[in-house]
Amino acid sequence: MGTIRALQRDDWDDWRALWGGYLAFYRAQLSDETTRATFERLCAGTEGMFGLLALDDAGRGIGMANCVVHASTWSRQPKTYLEDLFVAPSARGHDVGRALLEAVKRAGADRGAPRLYWHTQQYNGRARSLYDLVGRPTSFVVYEM
Amino acid sequence: MGTIRALQRDDWDDWRALWGGYLAFYRAQLSDETTRATFERLCAGTEGMFGLLALDDAGRGIGMANCVVHASTWSRQPKTYLEDLFVAPSARGHDVGRALLEAVKRAGADRGAPRLYWHTQQYNGRARSLYDLVGRPTSFVVYEM
Amino acid sequence: MGTIRALQRDDWDDWRALWGGYLAFYRAQLSDETTRATFERLCAGTEGMFGLLALDDAGRGIGMANCVVHASTWSRQPKTYLEDLFVAPSARGHDVGRALLEAVKRAGADRGAPRLYWHTQQYNGRARSLYDLVGRPTSFVVYEM
Amino acid sequence: MGTIRALQRDDWDDWRALWGGYLAFYRAQLSDETTRATFERLCAGTEGMFGLLALDDAGRGIGMANCVVHASTWSRQPKTYLEDLFVAPSARGHDVGRALLEAVKRAGADRGAPRLYWHTQQYNGRARSLYDLVGRPTSFVVYEM
Repeated sequence: MGTIRALQRDDWDDWRALWGGYLAFYRAQLSDETTRATFERLCAGTEGMFGLLALDDAGRGIGMANCVVHASTWSRQPKTYLEDLFVAPSARGHDVGRALLEAVKRAGADRGAPRLYWHTQQYNGRARSLYDLVGRPTSFVVYEM
Repeated sequence: MGTIRALQRDDWDDWRALWGGYLAFYRAQLSDETTRATFERLCAGTEGMFGLLALDDAGRGIGMANCVVHASTWSRQPKTYLEDLFVAPSARGHDVGRALLEAVKRAGADRGAPRLYWHTQQYNGRARSLYDLVGRPTSFVVYEM
Repeated sequence: MGTIRALQRDDWDDWRALWGGYLAFYRAQLSDETTRATFERLCAGTEGMFGLLALDDAGRGIGMANCVVHASTWSRQPKTYLEDLFVAPSARGHDVGRALLEAVKRAGADRGAPRLYWHTQQYNGRARSLYDLVGRPTSFVVYEM
Repeated sequence: MGTIRALQRDDWDDWRALWGGYLAFYRAQLSDETTRATFERLCAGTEGMFGLLALDDAGRGIGMANCVVHASTWSRQPKTYLEDLFVAPSARGHDVGRALLEAVKRAGADRGAPRLYWHTQQYNGRARSLYDLVGRPTSFVVYEM
């Protein structure tokens, strides 16, 4: 694969397509306003947000990682929450997801937030087989209210 | 039970005892510097943090909730992460945990962060029997790296 | 399908391909030395190890099972640990996995180790739908240190 | 707490009591012959087995760990299977279990088997809260046949 770098404003078309694929995976719909605002914040780095984009050798966006750095009660350092990770179906099987995870870990550490966490569906075997290799499963489940 | 209110600086002794019980539950140890810094940030409301304290009729602290409001890619509104919840063993069985969860939900909404989430050990039956009642389990598990 | 029999030294090419597919499934890499040593031990039956190979009607290896017989504190008999099971993708859907499991059960019993166990990812639905039919899930999860 | 050392033949009375408590926890029954044979093998170190005993300051056995070192297909080194771990109820809350786990890890490494694993019921919160701290949960569940 090509490179991974910080998301930029002229990545909109590539990022929009990846975000759309990601939302479709979760059968979710979001307003264009929210999508646009999220992209803006990821590019600007406001509210602790940052985005990474994976590019193929031709410079096309093939994977994205959207992150939020936030405070934690367990440390004076913030931690990095990887909220969204997506690799284009056509680009799978080439370790793009793994490279994105490792790049997120480094980018979080660069922001003083070396502890990284994320959520995944317990039944998402494809994703978890990667996560088990690169990260560590915990005993924690997520509740909402 | 008595009341639930925002954590204040003169709650240090009560909060410190609850925090110690909470860390002991997780068999964890934190430096005094981190504990003190966390308390300060929860009281000051810096970095999106806030704390709630449950008091008995005599005004003693019997439960705590430590929260972080942070940005999300899925909404222009931030969400509320309930990072720590603890009720003193002697005060259990009187719905203090439930009252704290409901108060956190309201306090998050007051801060423009009505979506609330938290993590719990999949095997923590006592806690989950409450969480299932007040909140909703998701299919998400937590990974770390 | 064809037959299942004990792994032999001249099965190297077939076994090597299956082992490679198996490692790729786990996104794992092992040195050639370790792979070769594992194959030798499975063939020689040293250290309680044995291997089974499933062959199609043309005599090509289409599935493998690698096992370790080891002592147990719960019985004077050892038990059989099925450490690796793999069926070539092109051979799936024809009960090769099931036949291998049943052959492992018999081969373990022949070695005085009739109790058989194995580990599988909780999220591996394809494998578990077979295991639930032929074996029994337990409430045990695996920890490492 | 006192010390942890290798199981010896004159520990029979202490070990027998701990083994009985352990079996009772699992609502299991074993013949005296099997119990005696297991103890003998743990002391003698036959079939890769070894036992550790935790003693209080008065020299009474308060915890046990029964282990089996066995071959693995993934490495030329064997691994250590911690088959049974038990701390007397009266001795809990003093990190005996944690000390036993760490001693098992060291004892396995001394035998050339540094990778340690064990099974636990997914709903055993008391045990898992310790295991999550000292070890790592995996995504693996156990099947039997």
